[in-house]
Amino acid sequence: MALHARLHGTTVALEQDILAKNQHLAEHNRDWFAERGVLALNLVSSPGSGKTTLLERTIRDLHEQLQIHVIEGDQATINDAERIRATGCKVIQINTGTGCHLDADMLARGVGQLDPPSNSVLMIENVGNLVCPALFDLGERAKVVILSVTEGEDKPIKYPHMFKASGVMLLNKIDLLPHLCFDVERCIDYARQVNPGIQVFRVSAQTGEGMADWYEWLRSKATSRPGIKTAR
Amino acid sequence: MALHARLHGTTVALEQDILAKNQHLAEHNRDWFAERGVLALNLVSSPGSGKTTLLERTIRDLHEQLQIHVIEGDQATINDAERIRATGCKVIQINTGTGCHLDADMLARGVGQLDPPSNSVLMIENVGNLVCPALFDLGERAKVVILSVTEGEDKPIKYPHMFKASGVMLLNKIDLLPHLCFDVERCIDYARQVNPGIQVFRVSAQTGEGMADWYEWLRSKATSRPGIKTAR
Repeated sequence: MALHARLHGTTVALEQDILAKNQHLAEHNRDWFAERGVLALNLVSSPGSGKTTLLERTIRDLHEQLQIHVIEGDQATINDAERIRATGCKVIQINTGTGCHLDADMLARGVGQLDPPSNSVLMIENVGNLVCPALFDLGERAKVVILSVTEGEDKPIKYPHMFKASGVMLLNKIDLLPHLCFDVERCIDYARQVNPGIQVFRVSAQTGEGMADWYEWLRSKATSRPGIKTAR
Repeated sequence: MALHARLHGTTVALEQDILAKNQHLAEHNRDWFAERGVLALNLVSSPGSGKTTLLERTIRDLHEQLQIHVIEGDQATINDAERIRATGCKVIQINTGTGCHLDADMLARGVGQLDPPSNSVLMIENVGNLVCPALFDLGERAKVVILSVTEGEDKPIKYPHMFKASGVMLLNKIDLLPHLCFDVERCIDYARQVNPGIQVFRVSAQTGEGMADWYEWLRSKATSRPGIKTAR
């Protein structure tokens, strides 16, 4: 949509208006999370990067240490919510139809239904799209971008907005590296070119390799509470 | 964007207006292609499905039989255009910035620069995004959706709009099947649930497996010229 804004002058103001309204609602969500000490993370990626598998494993491995709730975003189907529900975790599915991302209003309504308790973790699995969700703040503490090594190492520079917007990159499916041409160091270099501060974990949600470091990060964030109004 | 149209009443008309303008320009493009007997194909997929590798191999294997020109769409970088140029093929790179898809106006400008000759093939590699490009007709003869087997077999039902809009599905990276949990038959069933007429080819652009059937389809389309104004 953003490019259209450039081509069709009249839509510029409207897009800015939509993003400004979204930002306002996102700040409301952020305050709500901060007041309750809820760690909200916005998981973003291409379709098929392994977000749901990563969530399933994370929930199963950490269920004694962290209380995790999930909001699932997809154009269609409730498949992902059913997979998450099978882990014993509370989950809400949001279907966006032709929509390409979750926005702060949808999230607020999902959170209203889910009602995550104080000091819990809220995982938001966004629609699989490495482009549009970069523009929409949901009020999360951080965006976590999942990049599968099957996608090619140049994705951070070809889709720079998402990697710039994310605090963490999970480089997933590293169990497949022996079967691929994929230069891990170059990929991480590219990610740091667009975002020098991005934290990178190399993981396989399938085999569990590397997941311990991600869990440590998650536990440390879950126990650190940002102040209200400074929670960026 | 489409979901926003539902949430913010005022944008409905505007989005319809954008899509109507795009459709008008797309029909112009379609007529132009039909008059010259140019077969234009719109290659759509998630990021990292292997579109560029598929194009490289197709161009190298068919360069004596078909004259192929390429338009590359990406948010950033000219990497893909450089890869295509190395095959000896004429190519134009369009960078969309924060934009999530190519539209008919961008395509018309690219075609103006590229000036593909009569009876040639124009391959349009869209921005890697399994969502938004489904909504924008470029005037192509068909959308060709590339799905990599690393993405999971449920993608056709989770992103139904793209699979409904596409005439062909290339199931790519089949050389990786021995290392994955991926049910090929189920994936094809899902694609046919949303689009009973979709034509499916199982390929590996890396090893060349299955490419012959895709080439046969391509040659047959390149030599069949649809009438002007009936070119859908």
